[in-house]
Amino acid sequence: MSLKVIAFDADDTLFVNETYFLETEEKFCELMSDYLSHQGIAQELFRIEIHNLKIYGYGIKAYILSMIEAAMTISNNTIPVEVIEKIIQYGKELLEKPIVLLDGVEETLKTLHGKYKLVVATKGDLLDQRRKLHNSGLGKYFHHIEVMSDKQEQDYLDLIKRLEIKPTEFYMIGNSLKSDVLPVLAIGGYAAHVPFHTTWAHEKIDHEVKHENFSAFEKITEVLKKLK
Amino acid sequence: MSLKVIAFDADDTLFVNETYFLETEEKFCELMSDYLSHQGIAQELFRIEIHNLKIYGYGIKAYILSMIEAAMTISNNTIPVEVIEKIIQYGKELLEKPIVLLDGVEETLKTLHGKYKLVVATKGDLLDQRRKLHNSGLGKYFHHIEVMSDKQEQDYLDLIKRLEIKPTEFYMIGNSLKSDVLPVLAIGGYAAHVPFHTTWAHEKIDHEVKHENFSAFEKITEVLKKLK
Repeated sequence: MSLKVIAFDADDTLFVNETYFLETEEKFCELMSDYLSHQGIAQELFRIEIHNLKIYGYGIKAYILSMIEAAMTISNNTIPVEVIEKIIQYGKELLEKPIVLLDGVEETLKTLHGKYKLVVATKGDLLDQRRKLHNSGLGKYFHHIEVMSDKQEQDYLDLIKRLEIKPTEFYMIGNSLKSDVLPVLAIGGYAAHVPFHTTWAHEKIDHEVKHENFSAFEKITEVLKKLK
Repeated sequence: MSLKVIAFDADDTLFVNETYFLETEEKFCELMSDYLSHQGIAQELFRIEIHNLKIYGYGIKAYILSMIEAAMTISNNTIPVEVIEKIIQYGKELLEKPIVLLDGVEETLKTLHGKYKLVVATKGDLLDQRRKLHNSGLGKYFHHIEVMSDKQEQDYLDLIKRLEIKPTEFYMIGNSLKSDVLPVLAIGGYAAHVPFHTTWAHEKIDHEVKHENFSAFEKITEVLKKLK
């Protein structure tokens, strides 16, 4: 390996994220509990989120808009406007959640810093991701943050072009096999999977990954054995 | 000048944007006309947009959420939920507006392409800006698109660091003196102002710009006289 850039996914790789979304979903289901079962509400919200992905993209603002739409659909437009107000409040709270670093993240970044160009490669709202990185105190380890509109093969090819490197000089570390690992392997880069205990349904895959450029780790610090 | 990167603002510099926001605002005011005068509604929407900027950032999703909030505030939460549905529909329509290139844009880009690294430097929603650039057919002229969370001095310093150039190697072209010109001049770069016939209140400044690195043009093609 002659690596130049090590890219880290942000949400659930560097810091807690999915946990907060699940908390918010829980509160949303509670709010709508007169209309449908918890499971029914969660399913309808997920359906609307996926439907809106193409037009809204990823991130919390898209999530707030999808919750509002779900509330109207689920209630057949009988929901009181105060519920919409609550949803916006939940959304704003989600945008202001504290940053909780995951185990070993700071040690890993500190060790790799100066040896490689480190970047953050993440989906979601630009402002939100910048704010989280800034508030996390991790900003100093990174050359910059790359907010991607999606994490498919073409998005990684664009990223690599923009970084002016070859795919073989690119190493991606993240918690999603679907978004952080498979597309990177497919374009000839290196990828490592470090799982988070919870994965959003949209990010799940149901097969095992076997590839010579792939590593699976339990903890992010194990990356250091690979990248000396 | 020994320039390396020419950066173009996107909205109202490459293609029509503010016109569409004004059309949407018009429809929003119509929708709320039972509650307040057109001017009163527009003022309240603007107040909420500015208040939300820090948490939501720029772009259409932020605008939709602010319209919803304004509708609830203006109506003192008496708005029927169907109005919220309409606002979301207007927002989605805004996201899907056709791309109308401004005069001389394609000629300018075609001439500069290959001589400099051309990038788009824009605020707003990442996915939305990518989509617009793609649909505009201008994508082929640009090395990549830089979606910035804001356009203040620090944001341009971050951009220049990321591009691995010096401020004196950077030339910014845009329709906003406040966002595209003043911060770039302040950090030692070059900037050109090409006005659009309409400017969002938040982007207005009330003084004249005089600086040796500054050019004011009537049309974007005049940039070509400066950059041979």
